[in-house]
Amino acid sequence: MSDLQPAFILVRPQMGENIGAAARAMLNFGLSHMRLIDPRDGWPNPRAVAMASGAAGKVLDHAGVFETLPEAIHDCSYIFATTARSRDLTKPVMTPERAMEHARALSASGQRVGVLFGPERAGLENEDISRANAIISIPVNPDFASLNLGQAVLLCAYEWRRQGDQTPPEVLELAGTELAPAIEVEKLGDHYEERLEEAGFFFPATKAEGMKLNLRNLWSRMPLTRADVQTLHGVLRQIVRKAGK
Amino acid sequence: MSDLQPAFILVRPQMGENIGAAARAMLNFGLSHMRLIDPRDGWPNPRAVAMASGAAGKVLDHAGVFETLPEAIHDCSYIFATTARSRDLTKPVMTPERAMEHARALSASGQRVGVLFGPERAGLENEDISRANAIISIPVNPDFASLNLGQAVLLCAYEWRRQGDQTPPEVLELAGTELAPAIEVEKLGDHYEERLEEAGFFFPATKAEGMKLNLRNLWSRMPLTRADVQTLHGVLRQIVRKAGK
Repeated sequence: MSDLQPAFILVRPQMGENIGAAARAMLNFGLSHMRLIDPRDGWPNPRAVAMASGAAGKVLDHAGVFETLPEAIHDCSYIFATTARSRDLTKPVMTPERAMEHARALSASGQRVGVLFGPERAGLENEDISRANAIISIPVNPDFASLNLGQAVLLCAYEWRRQGDQTPPEVLELAGTELAPAIEVEKLGDHYEERLEEAGFFFPATKAEGMKLNLRNLWSRMPLTRADVQTLHGVLRQIVRKAGK
Repeated sequence: MSDLQPAFILVRPQMGENIGAAARAMLNFGLSHMRLIDPRDGWPNPRAVAMASGAAGKVLDHAGVFETLPEAIHDCSYIFATTARSRDLTKPVMTPERAMEHARALSASGQRVGVLFGPERAGLENEDISRANAIISIPVNPDFASLNLGQAVLLCAYEWRRQGDQTPPEVLELAGTELAPAIEVEKLGDHYEERLEEAGFFFPATKAEGMKLNLRNLWSRMPLTRADVQTLHGVLRQIVRKAGK
């Protein structure tokens, strides 16, 4: 909820439900600074509130409402317009990824960024777009390009968060255990190799070396937790015990 | 519509509308291989069809319907489960970005990837997750984490497309013009400097150099198109003409 958050500005939005959905999508990714320009059904809008619910309702409570675009963007130093490419206006066109990277950099240096989202049916008009510094164009399937307002807000908010996110791309979630040290994997390999040797598994002799190698490789590749190693020892012991009866 | 597309697998989905919305979100980003496990309201579902409409209806027409998870994933060599982190199962947890990067690599080598999405209310059960190779966890605002089925599908489909997308991050869209060559910008600068010199703009003399430098810098920074240069010459000529009357 820092002052430097970009303002997501809904330009002449029509359906209250979509305003509520936009508030939810923003908050999903930590954004709470919403502005509205001339909402069709007036403001406040009970349908927007019903859709937003809970914490997202606060985004609506704090939303600034303006009559015109110049008023709504008055304090923004950099404006993005989300739209398909306009062939009528010379303007930089950015992917959401690049745009939110740029927005992060501007915000970090104390600049207020505004992101314009057009009305559901027609989108932004050239009159609106002419006041933006750059266009955000979401690279969609050209044969099926229609995204609704909530989806456009969701994807831009997602990219905003992703650009600043510290989540490691991949972690191994360990459920109350830890990875097995190599000595335990080694002993597990020994255990299987011994019992399988006794059972005549490594046959014919010319293939035995290769078979043993593959089995060692299998244990090492998993990777195994200490709990897994205990489970696999237990599995083998129980099978051998049963077979010995 | 290549064979190597990941299968997006909706596990016990409830609302037909959400199945339709998922089909739309997939197709928005070029994915068309959907599978359904035990949809609550049977199949086909008219509400799903009504929501999907047009080309997304074909995604539904071709969706495979299965009774159980093992049947639905039978030909998948790598399975992702989309869910909040499970503390009960040891499993790699990836961001959508990392997961779809991995899915791209697997798909490129001919492996079928499956991505599981749980039912709306409760999400995937541990019984489902235990059959996945890895978890996809979308990094959301922990204070407002709820994403619906359509949003989860949208974000994963977006990341799939983004990982393979060739769209340049930023282009300057030129509306029937081209960037002005330096000589034109130079002459524009000369024109303004001369007229402003005559008008006594560069005052006091000690500041004149700096003022001229800033003005040159302004023209160069924009960047200007050839049409812009002509406009700015015209603006200046007209003002000077008017003032001379």
